[in-house]
Amino acid sequence: MGQGSSEFDLIARYFSLGVPSVWDSQGIGDDCAIVKIGDTSVAITVDTVALGTHFLLDADPYTVGRKALAVNLSDLAAAGATPRAFFLAISLPDADETWLKRFSLGLKEEASRYGCALLGGDTTRTTSVGTNAAPTTMTITAMGEGKVLRTREGARVGDDIWVSGTLGDAYAALKMRWGHWSEKVTDYLASRMDTPTPRVDLGLALTGLASASADVSDGFLADLGHILKRSGVGAKLNADAFARSGDLQRLSQAKQYEAILTGGDDYELVWTAPKSAREQIRALATADCPLSLVGEVVSEGFLVEDAHGQAVHFDRKGFDHFG
Amino acid sequence: MGQGSSEFDLIARYFSLGVPSVWDSQGIGDDCAIVKIGDTSVAITVDTVALGTHFLLDADPYTVGRKALAVNLSDLAAAGATPRAFFLAISLPDADETWLKRFSLGLKEEASRYGCALLGGDTTRTTSVGTNAAPTTMTITAMGEGKVLRTREGARVGDDIWVSGTLGDAYAALKMRWGHWSEKVTDYLASRMDTPTPRVDLGLALTGLASASADVSDGFLADLGHILKRSGVGAKLNADAFARSGDLQRLSQAKQYEAILTGGDDYELVWTAPKSAREQIRALATADCPLSLVGEVVSEGFLVEDAHGQAVHFDRKGFDHFG
Repeated sequence: MGQGSSEFDLIARYFSLGVPSVWDSQGIGDDCAIVKIGDTSVAITVDTVALGTHFLLDADPYTVGRKALAVNLSDLAAAGATPRAFFLAISLPDADETWLKRFSLGLKEEASRYGCALLGGDTTRTTSVGTNAAPTTMTITAMGEGKVLRTREGARVGDDIWVSGTLGDAYAALKMRWGHWSEKVTDYLASRMDTPTPRVDLGLALTGLASASADVSDGFLADLGHILKRSGVGAKLNADAFARSGDLQRLSQAKQYEAILTGGDDYELVWTAPKSAREQIRALATADCPLSLVGEVVSEGFLVEDAHGQAVHFDRKGFDHFG
Repeated sequence: MGQGSSEFDLIARYFSLGVPSVWDSQGIGDDCAIVKIGDTSVAITVDTVALGTHFLLDADPYTVGRKALAVNLSDLAAAGATPRAFFLAISLPDADETWLKRFSLGLKEEASRYGCALLGGDTTRTTSVGTNAAPTTMTITAMGEGKVLRTREGARVGDDIWVSGTLGDAYAALKMRWGHWSEKVTDYLASRMDTPTPRVDLGLALTGLASASADVSDGFLADLGHILKRSGVGAKLNADAFARSGDLQRLSQAKQYEAILTGGDDYELVWTAPKSAREQIRALATADCPLSLVGEVVSEGFLVEDAHGQAVHFDRKGFDHFG
C-alpha cells in the first residue's frame, strides 16, 4: 500500500482477482484496506522494505527497524486509525545476531511508542538467483481500528488542501547522500530520512474534519494526485505556502520546489477539508509539526503557482499517478 | 507462521517485543495468531515463499501462485477458521508480464476455491547485494474467522493423535527432483508437492472435536512436536498406521518412514482429539482424504513403534522442535 506508481499499476493490473469479499471493503487503491470485521472497522496495510532499495546496505539496523514499522503506521495515520497490531515477515540470507538485535530494538521502540503489538510473523532464509547474497527484505502487515476511517476518496470542490510537517527533507538527504546534490547532508535532514515520524495522533485528530487523506510516501504531487483521481476533482496549489525546514531553505529555490513537490519518503499527511474546519485544523499544529494550507480543490485541472501567481516548474518525477 | 525450527527461534528470540496488545491474542507460536477484534475471533497468518528456496527458480508461476496462497490457507485450516481475506506483498527484480499473469492466475484459482478475497498489497522492486538478480519473494497475510478457533495447545493425556491425507508424498517428490533418491518422480507425487490441498473443510469440521491441531508444513514429527510442547504432554505413535499413497508404497520401508515422519511440505493436518470423538472423526474421511489414527497422547516421552511394537529408526531431520 502507498505504492509507487508502477507498483500500484502492477497490483491493479494483475491482482484484481474478482473474488468477492464476505468482509466489506472499499477495494484496492488506498493507503489502507478498510475492512469491516463484525462491528469493527479495521484498517490494514502491507508494506515491504528492502535493504539496497529503501535502505543503504550498511544502514544502521536500528533505524531500519524503526522505519520499517513507521511507514506502515503512516498508512494507518492516513486512514485515521489507532494502531493495534502488526505481523512481521523477514527474509534474510543468514541470521546475523548483531543485526537482528539492533533491528528488533528499533522495531520495539517504534511499536511501544504507538501501542502496536507484534502478534506473529515468519522468517525465511533466501538465496540469490546467482552467487551473491539476496537482500534482506521485511514485510509488515499493520492493523488499526477506528469508528470512522478515511480513504483517498471524498475531496470536494472548494475544500482546502493541507499538508503536515516540512516536506522535502528526506528527499534532500537522499540526494546529498547519493552525491546528486553537492551539499553535505545535515544531521537534521538525515534524521528526517532515517526515522520519519508517522503522524498517528494527527491522523486521529483529523477524524470528522478531513474529507480525504493520504500519506506522503511517493511524493506530495503523486500522493495528492491519488486523492484527486479517486475523488474525481482537480487542484490549485501555492508552492510557496509549504512550511520548509531551515536546512531546506538553504538550498536553491529550484531544489526546494523539487524536494517539496516531488520528493518521496516524507511520511507526512496530505488531506482535504472543508473551509469550515480551518480553525479547528490550525489548532492541531505543534512546534514539531506545522500544518500548511497549500491549495484548494477545484473541479478539474491542476495548477501549481508561486506566491506571485506564476507557474512553478519542477522535475515531474513522482508525478506519474496524476492525470 | 508454521515456521521451520530455526526460523521459529528467531521470532521468539528477537521479536518478543513486550508491547501489550489491546486486541486479545494468545501470543506467538501457533500456525495462526488468534485475535479478538470486537466480538469476532480472527485467525491471522503470515508466510513468505521465495523462488530458489521454496520453489525451483524455473517453477511454473501458476503453481507458485496456487501454493503461495495454499500454505497460508493451510494455517487457517489448522485453526479451524473460514478464509476471508488476504494481502499480498511481492518483491521482484523486474516486472515479467508473462510470469505475473501466470502467477496471478494460480493465485486467483486458489482464492476463488476458498472464497478468500485479495484486499490489498504492495509490490517492491529489489536489487541484490551483489551483481546478480534478487529472488522473487511473496509474503501473504491471510485472515479468517470462526466462533471457536484452535491452537496447538490443548492436547490431553489419552487423546487420539490423527493425521489427514497421505504424508510424505511432497518430500518424496523433492528428493527425486533433487536426485537424492534415484527413482523418477511421478505426476502424482509432483502434484502433491506443487499444488498441495489446504484442508480448510476438514479444519472447520473438526471444530468441537479436536483438542489441538497444527498443519504439517515442517514435517509430521516436528509439527506434532509443536502440539506436544505447547500442551505439555508426550506421545506414542504407530508408524505403520499412516495412510500411504500407492507411489510412496513402491519405495523402500526406510524411505517411507523418513518421508512420512520427517518430510515437510505436506500441508495436511495433525490433531489430537478425545477417544469419544473417534466415530465422528472417522465419518469425515473421504476418498481423496483418508484420516489416520496414528497414536495416543501420553503424559511424557516420545515413542515411535512399528505395527509389531518395534522401535522405528528414522533420520531425525525435521524433529528439532521436540524435546
